[in-house]
Amino acid sequence: MRAAIVAVGSELLRPGRPETNGSYLGERLAEIGIPVVQRSTVADELEPLESILRQARSLADLVLVTGGLGPTADDLTRSAAAAAVGRPLRRNAAALEELKARFARLGRRMAAANEQQADLIEGATHLPNPNGTAPGQRLRDGDRLLVLLPGPPRELMPMFEEQVLPLLRELAGPGVTRTRVLRMASVSEGEVDQLVSPLYTRVRNPRTTILGSPGQVDLHLTAEAPDPETAERRIEELAAGIRSVLPGRIFSEDGRELHEVVSRLLIERSLTLAVAESCTGGGLAARLTRVPGASEFLERGFVCYSNRSKIEELDVDSGLLDSAGAVSEPVAAAMAEGARRRAATSLGIGITGIAGPSGGTEDKPVGLVYIGVSDPAGTRVSRARFPGGRDQVRRQACQLALELLRRRLLGLELP
Amino acid sequence: MRAAIVAVGSELLRPGRPETNGSYLGERLAEIGIPVVQRSTVADELEPLESILRQARSLADLVLVTGGLGPTADDLTRSAAAAAVGRPLRRNAAALEELKARFARLGRRMAAANEQQADLIEGATHLPNPNGTAPGQRLRDGDRLLVLLPGPPRELMPMFEEQVLPLLRELAGPGVTRTRVLRMASVSEGEVDQLVSPLYTRVRNPRTTILGSPGQVDLHLTAEAPDPETAERRIEELAAGIRSVLPGRIFSEDGRELHEVVSRLLIERSLTLAVAESCTGGGLAARLTRVPGASEFLERGFVCYSNRSKIEELDVDSGLLDSAGAVSEPVAAAMAEGARRRAATSLGIGITGIAGPSGGTEDKPVGLVYIGVSDPAGTRVSRARFPGGRDQVRRQACQLALELLRRRLLGLELP
Repeated sequence: MRAAIVAVGSELLRPGRPETNGSYLGERLAEIGIPVVQRSTVADELEPLESILRQARSLADLVLVTGGLGPTADDLTRSAAAAAVGRPLRRNAAALEELKARFARLGRRMAAANEQQADLIEGATHLPNPNGTAPGQRLRDGDRLLVLLPGPPRELMPMFEEQVLPLLRELAGPGVTRTRVLRMASVSEGEVDQLVSPLYTRVRNPRTTILGSPGQVDLHLTAEAPDPETAERRIEELAAGIRSVLPGRIFSEDGRELHEVVSRLLIERSLTLAVAESCTGGGLAARLTRVPGASEFLERGFVCYSNRSKIEELDVDSGLLDSAGAVSEPVAAAMAEGARRRAATSLGIGITGIAGPSGGTEDKPVGLVYIGVSDPAGTRVSRARFPGGRDQVRRQACQLALELLRRRLLGLELP
Repeated sequence: MRAAIVAVGSELLRPGRPETNGSYLGERLAEIGIPVVQRSTVADELEPLESILRQARSLADLVLVTGGLGPTADDLTRSAAAAAVGRPLRRNAAALEELKARFARLGRRMAAANEQQADLIEGATHLPNPNGTAPGQRLRDGDRLLVLLPGPPRELMPMFEEQVLPLLRELAGPGVTRTRVLRMASVSEGEVDQLVSPLYTRVRNPRTTILGSPGQVDLHLTAEAPDPETAERRIEELAAGIRSVLPGRIFSEDGRELHEVVSRLLIERSLTLAVAESCTGGGLAARLTRVPGASEFLERGFVCYSNRSKIEELDVDSGLLDSAGAVSEPVAAAMAEGARRRAATSLGIGITGIAGPSGGTEDKPVGLVYIGVSDPAGTRVSRARFPGGRDQVRRQACQLALELLRRRLLGLELP
């Protein structure tokens, strides 16, 4: 069984309007092992809509259509779908009753235009919509299934979960698909691939995909199996192999991002933290405080852009700033130590670097960043040179700071 | 003339992989007045690919296809497109030469598999790719145009701009489409719509779209005209009307975001700023420092999560924290004043609030935020209650702080 998804709405084709229903449906289908072979977004016009529905039906056993079920002249999904399957529309008494009851409950008069929302393709099952006026419908046609769903996510999601997914589970059979994501920070995609490809190329189930973003590599392991336990066991076998070639590198296998992992480590150990940021400009503090409960460990943060603020807030020696420069190993160390001392915390972090696009020199190019981590055992500084533009350099610097903290907390060798 | 866009690649159908080439192409086509009637993403499989290409061609005069032009068995765009138009593939000598020269330049041996990248649909024009191995191709077929483009954006974009767009401009004719975005902060979509809908519903050209996001409303005015000057004049007429009903509200009409506008105002006036953040946790400083040159105005920032840090770093009175509470008007004022005094800057900002999800009370619910702005003329505090989750509350608080700063700098009445 394979699926095609069609999102209806001219507004979804305009710049800056991402189509999110298809992503949601694709994820839910993946979980029950139904692959999506095609996703389309189409304008509110009869001809293209009918054309894509015909094509999708010719291609896929399951066609999910979202949107275009409203009461206006722009809402053409019902007529286009009826034409595409070559059946007439019939007004459905139950759907009409539901519509009228909804309007009565809200104390509003139902416009005549709303009545067409009760039109169902001949042979289709009415899917009640407790969260809006547009009823859905589902048409079994031999082995094939066509489902029309409302566009607003808060109407679509409960309707899909409650009235469509159970049937799809049945049709898809007992097989399941499970995915686990192994996340690593501050490592290159190429480096990871070189180490793990001998493992994952040997097995076709689970299949492995590598997704790299600045400062992070995610390994997606997706297994198919007759039941969830077997799928998880297959994933675990491969994951164990990957862990052994990348010892200490994987920071999460449960969907958590690095700042969540580090926050939990700090809270579990009742440790406190102060951060001093120059080039990242508050980005590290902002990331750590995205997690509720950050006040349990983040005592304070300093954004020290100017030399004066480094001296006044962090007690960095002015002679050091003159001799080594603001972007240097000893200044990163002094910032980390100053933050820790001033805030009287267990740990301190200092970040100084050149985010660009200007300010780089031959000795100190754009992308050069020093990160100091200070704790009662001492202070260590790591030096990195990040590729990319200003945003990417700043994001990678925050990511490396978090990874250094994680490794310090877990007693792992620093990278 | 109307367009359909097809993105090829199974990886684009996986969760978490947004398809961005289509957005880019859609925007560029909109500028020359070619509407996109359909966008599809399709798996690397011959049957679906051929099927969607046939359907797209039956629907649109212009079909743009991205991806699937590589050298591997998964790269099926060439064969599927040839089948869809019913023409054979022919190896193109110029394309083959280009490929060989590229490999020679890089000192690498060309694999036999790469040769098929030089296969062109009979009658198609070869589009050289100076940024990668996959050549593009373009097939004129009566009134219709089929264009195959490589998937990687840094290969696709220059090829499209230089080798496709000029031809499309010719085909689209002299008409142009221009869009201007009027941006407003810390105002509700409903409020804006109530004020401007009497203006924009009267005109069909430009057409107006409202796009709301937390803390921001963007009005997109899109005009069609025979020439750019007329399009701009039409937009300006409507924009002038909108400005008059929303005096001082629009912070940019040139694509700049609020932090860019505020940064420029501060730099132009040689003013300096210090920020003290509690609930936003460094988010305001991080936003301001996204702009290169932030060191010209951002002297320093304080992330004061703990009461102790508010007392030690900002000289907030401990009695005040006890009596009024950390989330209160006088504490926001004291934070703004303390930051300004400690950093000896022209301006100071203090933000304190309850970002949630926990920590709210009946008196001080989640979403309550106080923002103080201090300058030599005095300190003013604004109180707001933001809807949404933790991230949304924090984003809206940063946005309001920037808007308050903008209005203070421009001498506009505070909202």
